[in-house]
Amino acid sequence: MAWASDPILAAAVSNAGGMGMLASGSMSAKDLSLEIEKTRTLTERVFGVNVMMLSPYLDEIVDLLVQDKVHLVTLGAGNPGKVIDKLKSAGILVAPVIASVAMARRAESVGADMVIAEGMEAGGHIGRITTMALIPQVADVIQIPVVAAGGIADARGMAAAFCLGAEGVQMGTRFVCSVECQVHNNYKERLLRASELDAIIAGVGSGHPIRCLRNSLTRKIDAMEKRGAEFEEIERIAVGGLRRAVKEGDVDNGSVMAGQICGLLREIVPVETIIRSMMEELTHIFLDHSGESIS
Amino acid sequence: MAWASDPILAAAVSNAGGMGMLASGSMSAKDLSLEIEKTRTLTERVFGVNVMMLSPYLDEIVDLLVQDKVHLVTLGAGNPGKVIDKLKSAGILVAPVIASVAMARRAESVGADMVIAEGMEAGGHIGRITTMALIPQVADVIQIPVVAAGGIADARGMAAAFCLGAEGVQMGTRFVCSVECQVHNNYKERLLRASELDAIIAGVGSGHPIRCLRNSLTRKIDAMEKRGAEFEEIERIAVGGLRRAVKEGDVDNGSVMAGQICGLLREIVPVETIIRSMMEELTHIFLDHSGESIS
Repeated sequence: MAWASDPILAAAVSNAGGMGMLASGSMSAKDLSLEIEKTRTLTERVFGVNVMMLSPYLDEIVDLLVQDKVHLVTLGAGNPGKVIDKLKSAGILVAPVIASVAMARRAESVGADMVIAEGMEAGGHIGRITTMALIPQVADVIQIPVVAAGGIADARGMAAAFCLGAEGVQMGTRFVCSVECQVHNNYKERLLRASELDAIIAGVGSGHPIRCLRNSLTRKIDAMEKRGAEFEEIERIAVGGLRRAVKEGDVDNGSVMAGQICGLLREIVPVETIIRSMMEELTHIFLDHSGESIS
Repeated sequence: MAWASDPILAAAVSNAGGMGMLASGSMSAKDLSLEIEKTRTLTERVFGVNVMMLSPYLDEIVDLLVQDKVHLVTLGAGNPGKVIDKLKSAGILVAPVIASVAMARRAESVGADMVIAEGMEAGGHIGRITTMALIPQVADVIQIPVVAAGGIADARGMAAAFCLGAEGVQMGTRFVCSVECQVHNNYKERLLRASELDAIIAGVGSGHPIRCLRNSLTRKIDAMEKRGAEFEEIERIAVGGLRRAVKEGDVDNGSVMAGQICGLLREIVPVETIIRSMMEELTHIFLDHSGESIS
C-alpha cells in the first residue's frame, strides 16, 4: 500500500473503528514524520505504520517510530529480527508480515506481538501459500494472534478468516476503492473494471513476485524476464511503476497492484461504509450458520 | 484423485455421510463399470464419479454413466458443454469443476446443477485463483450451488467455505491420509511429513500446472521446462508419475499430488473419524463466533 495508504486513508480507517495503517514505503524519516503528524491531526485514535525492511532509510525510520511511539508497526519484506527489540522496548506492538509457517515461527521466536499472515491472493509483494491454507497451519503452531491478509474484501472473507483461526483481518485492495484513498481516479476505475483473472503475478522469475493487474507494464516485465533480466532492473521498473499508476493515473505503464478479490469491487464508498457494513453483515453470517449447524 | 479415489474410499465416504467420489481418470468404460459395481457392494448410499473431459474414453464413459445412472458426475479439465445434456437427460446431477468466474458462468449457462469451485491451493491440476478469492466472486454471479474445493482439510476450512458462500465442500488431500485410501503407504507417510511449502506447482510453463510435492520428478519437470519441452512430453512423465507414486510408492520419482493443506495432516485415521469430527467441530466454530459477534 505504498503511495496509497496515506494520512487521510489511515485516519479514516481508525476513525471508523479499524486500525489505520500508514505505508512508509521508501520514504525518508523526515517525510514519514510529517505523515504521522498529519495523521494525528485527522484522528485521535491509534494507528500504525508499515515498514519495509528493504527501505534504504530503515534505521532512521525505526528511530523515528521509537521516538514517536506509534501504536503498532507491521514489518514487511525482510527479516524482522533486526529491528524488533528496539521497537518493542519503546512499547510499540510489532507485527511482522509472514507468508509461511516457518516465517510465523521465526516471528514469534524473535518476540513479535502478532503476525500478519498474508496469502498469495493479496496485491503487491506476495508469497506462495494461500490464505485458506496458511491461516490454520500458522494458528496451529504459534501462540501469538494471527491477523489474516489476502483475499478479504467483505464480511464473508472476514468471517472465513475468523473461522480459519485469525483474530483480525488486514485489507488493502478493498480500501483502495474508498472515497478517502488518494490514489488517482484511473487506478480506482481500473480496479472496478478488473476481473479476478486480471490480477496476475509479475516478476516470478526474479524471485520477488508482485501481484498487479495485467497491462503494458506486466507484458514488459514478462519480456524482460524471458531475456533473463536481473531482479534489480525489474524492481526498478515495477517500483517506479507504482508511483506512475497511483499518482499520475497511468494504469497502462504503471504498476496497478491489486489482490484477486478485485472482481468483488463494485463501487467507491467511504471507509466508514465499508467497515460498518462488514461488521453488520459479519453478525448475520455467524448467526445464520450457527442456526444451521445446531438444527 | 485418479488412482486414489477407488471403491473402498468412495464407499467409506458415502457410508460416513459424505458424497463418495470415484475418480475415473483415464480408465476405460469397462474398468469403470467394475469399479461402480464394486462400490455398490460396499455402500447402499449414493456416490458420484469424476470424469476427466480429456479422457480418451470420454464417450464410452458418458454412455456407461447414463446407463448406470450414478447419482452425481463431476467434470474436470475441459469444457462440460459436450456431455452435460446426455448426463442430465438421464437424471444425473452434473457438477463441472471450475477455476474462475467465467468458467462458473459458462457451467451454469450450459445447465450444470452446481459447480465445484476449486482454488489453486488444491492438489493436482489447478487454476490461478485461490479459494478465498474464488468462492465469493462465483457465489455473487451464479444461482446454482457452489461447492468449495482447495485448502479444506478440517472444520475450520469447511466453516470458512460456508462463510464465503459455498453450500458444500470437496476434499481430496485430506482423504488420502485416511485408513481406507488405498494409495501406497509411502505416499501417505510423505504427506504426513510435508510442510505447506513442499506442495509446489510443476508444469507452469506448459500451461497445465499441477500441484504436487517437491521431489526428483518435479526437479526433472523443471529442467524439461527450462529447455522448452512440449506439454505432452511433460504430461506423460507426470501422469505416469502419479501411478508410480500411488501404486509403487516411489515418492521420489513419482508424482505426489497434494494440496497446500498437507501441513495440517498429522495422522492416518478412518474416513468416519475425519467426517464426524469435522461436523462436530463445525457446530462449535459457528456457535463460538455467533456468541462473539452479538455480544
